[in-house]
Amino acid sequence: MRLTRAADYAIRVMIHLATFAPGDRVKRTEIVAASRCPEKFLSKVLQSLTRARLVTSYRGKSGGYELASAGRHASILEIVEALDGPIHLNACTGPEPDCPLQPTCPAHHVWIEAQSALVGVLERAKIENLAGLESRIAQGA
Amino acid sequence: MRLTRAADYAIRVMIHLATFAPGDRVKRTEIVAASRCPEKFLSKVLQSLTRARLVTSYRGKSGGYELASAGRHASILEIVEALDGPIHLNACTGPEPDCPLQPTCPAHHVWIEAQSALVGVLERAKIENLAGLESRIAQGA
Repeated sequence: MRLTRAADYAIRVMIHLATFAPGDRVKRTEIVAASRCPEKFLSKVLQSLTRARLVTSYRGKSGGYELASAGRHASILEIVEALDGPIHLNACTGPEPDCPLQPTCPAHHVWIEAQSALVGVLERAKIENLAGLESRIAQGA
Repeated sequence: MRLTRAADYAIRVMIHLATFAPGDRVKRTEIVAASRCPEKFLSKVLQSLTRARLVTSYRGKSGGYELASAGRHASILEIVEALDGPIHLNACTGPEPDCPLQPTCPAHHVWIEAQSALVGVLERAKIENLAGLESRIAQGA
């Protein structure tokens, strides 16, 4: 029951990109330095974030990466799901639960409640707010 | 970020054992039928629960499995941790966090809050209460 490293790095990448103004393109080397994301993860991470339309990638000399509009307003939950897929703490909390005991299982509501509590925290945590916090921490405020 | 099947089965086994009065020993075949736990999982599950002193095992003709006193008052959290180890949603939420960015990471508090929300729900869900609920469901109440 643990976040993948790729999703963890994706969150760092997104927060870093969100500290730049809209229109600013950030070089890959700069993203590596800020997120400390190993090269082997970064391609996967940027590919997943681009596919989810949270990040826009530009090629060429003046290329780089920029937060898409949806990325600026995204939550930690959206980033985790872009990398790892939907969060389902147990087999019975997914959209197509596959458990013969579910109709009479007394633990089912516990998993629904636990998932709702977890997802709620991740949904309320917005990238743009965390980026503001990062900027204030960097300034020693 | 998902519960292992072994932990899921362990919860079913514990709830079923808790529907019996203290002193009642439950046969392995009866546990298999109630939990629908495949044989290949059941040995691991019962071994982990016994090692964690949540279940007591008795050998011989009148042998079987019985909930230990600690097991009756246990929470879902204790059972999950007996099978899967402590819950740490991210590398930074464990007792020995290993992340160079942690002191300045704006997402760290989100993981602490998410873990606390998840663990809180699992801690409040007590086996004896869930067993009572199972009995009422079985009686059609």
